[in-house]
Amino acid sequence: MRAITGHTRIFGILADPIYHVKTPEVMNALFERHGVDGVLIPFHVAPEGLAVLVDGLRRMQNFGGFIATVPHKPAMLALCDEVTFEAEQIGAVNCVRREADGRMIGTMLDGIGFVEALRASDIEPKGLRAYVAGAGGAASAIAFALAAGGVSHLTIANRTAAKANELAGRLRTAFPGVTVATEADSVKRHDLIVNGTSLGMRPEDLPPLDFSLIEARHIVAEAIMEPEMTPLLKAAEAKGCRIQRGKPMLESQIALMAKHMGGLPR
Amino acid sequence: MRAITGHTRIFGILADPIYHVKTPEVMNALFERHGVDGVLIPFHVAPEGLAVLVDGLRRMQNFGGFIATVPHKPAMLALCDEVTFEAEQIGAVNCVRREADGRMIGTMLDGIGFVEALRASDIEPKGLRAYVAGAGGAASAIAFALAAGGVSHLTIANRTAAKANELAGRLRTAFPGVTVATEADSVKRHDLIVNGTSLGMRPEDLPPLDFSLIEARHIVAEAIMEPEMTPLLKAAEAKGCRIQRGKPMLESQIALMAKHMGGLPR
Repeated sequence: MRAITGHTRIFGILADPIYHVKTPEVMNALFERHGVDGVLIPFHVAPEGLAVLVDGLRRMQNFGGFIATVPHKPAMLALCDEVTFEAEQIGAVNCVRREADGRMIGTMLDGIGFVEALRASDIEPKGLRAYVAGAGGAASAIAFALAAGGVSHLTIANRTAAKANELAGRLRTAFPGVTVATEADSVKRHDLIVNGTSLGMRPEDLPPLDFSLIEARHIVAEAIMEPEMTPLLKAAEAKGCRIQRGKPMLESQIALMAKHMGGLPR
Repeated sequence: MRAITGHTRIFGILADPIYHVKTPEVMNALFERHGVDGVLIPFHVAPEGLAVLVDGLRRMQNFGGFIATVPHKPAMLALCDEVTFEAEQIGAVNCVRREADGRMIGTMLDGIGFVEALRASDIEPKGLRAYVAGAGGAASAIAFALAAGGVSHLTIANRTAAKANELAGRLRTAFPGVTVATEADSVKRHDLIVNGTSLGMRPEDLPPLDFSLIEARHIVAEAIMEPEMTPLLKAAEAKGCRIQRGKPMLESQIALMAKHMGGLPR
């Protein structure tokens, strides 16, 4: 990467733990390709230190903004001075721009990144019936972005029914034109199946949905990046389904994040 | 430079303005030569934001420490949890280590860097009679380090006599074995002549001392780094003096700073 000088603009990623983050390599390569004199560095901060660090970064005049990741996304909502409609709807922030006066402007790009990655694979969500496993942070972001992307129907399937119902309610309010259901066993009545849970990251995980319900005509998408081929994707591929891996979701977000933080022109 | 990852340890330089700092290039090259997975980045912060940013950095768990430069050196004294004897004596901090628990340990290496640079040029201050022009931050640091380095006599020459007297008093208290005077016209009665003022940075500056008093037997040293050859050094060289440029003072400090911040083993 290019040398850091007194002119270099600084960006960050805030996480706890930090060692596993891959964004510095990816974003710094993007900056280099575009000739941007910027660098993204890791900030390791625990939840109890987040507000104090964010206040400090408000005072750092050559700081452009940061990416927030686990576990800081929900907490960042209250620490920003302004948030986008998406962030407010989803109840979490994953990318923050620092304005010249120190104000912090938050947005949420996880779901938009997922939908952009689908479209980059020539999968257009408009008019599809989508089944989303999970009702946590990733699932919420994906469900809102799919609704904004024009799916005709959404099913939110979650082990804890109360969480599924709560998310379904927020989706119905925000998108009255989309029908929203919560029946977990309705897989067959959908076109697009998405895993928005973390089930599949570890070998001992339970399946996020009943794989026996998957048919060849289904498009099956994953939000998990590591491993690249989860049990769900393997099962879907074995049935002849079109599959969408999790990694492109992050890749298509990187440019969106750089633009939100002012690292690339919008 | 090597790629920044989630494992990389972060260091900083705090300054206002920031664009002119050269420390990121120099320190990052040092880290690379020593195979250290660390990076030093510029933090642009105004005096009124310094305390808030420092508090934020206490919470950044992968942060090793920072270099403080103009105008933050005196203010950092009160913002550290602990300072070295040198920093306390000089009344300023230019390098801070962040301990694992967030405590900030400050030191002052400007003067030690100056003396180490002299020694690297085979100039041993021990027993010399030294004349220091100036009584500000740089001059104080150099005077204390020369006293600690064993000079037999120190003259502090400053346009504002009160500042010279105040510094001379502190030096006498700290080093009872060194005689300390304040006569500006006593240049001839010294072995080592040091410019600790900023006079000579700009073409229109007045001379920091009366060049006509310089003799060939004098060793003449500069704290100014830019320009490399100041009017003082040119005048001294023309008289056949041994001269010491300002730049090695920073170069010999870089390793000391890296060690204080834990970037290199002590």
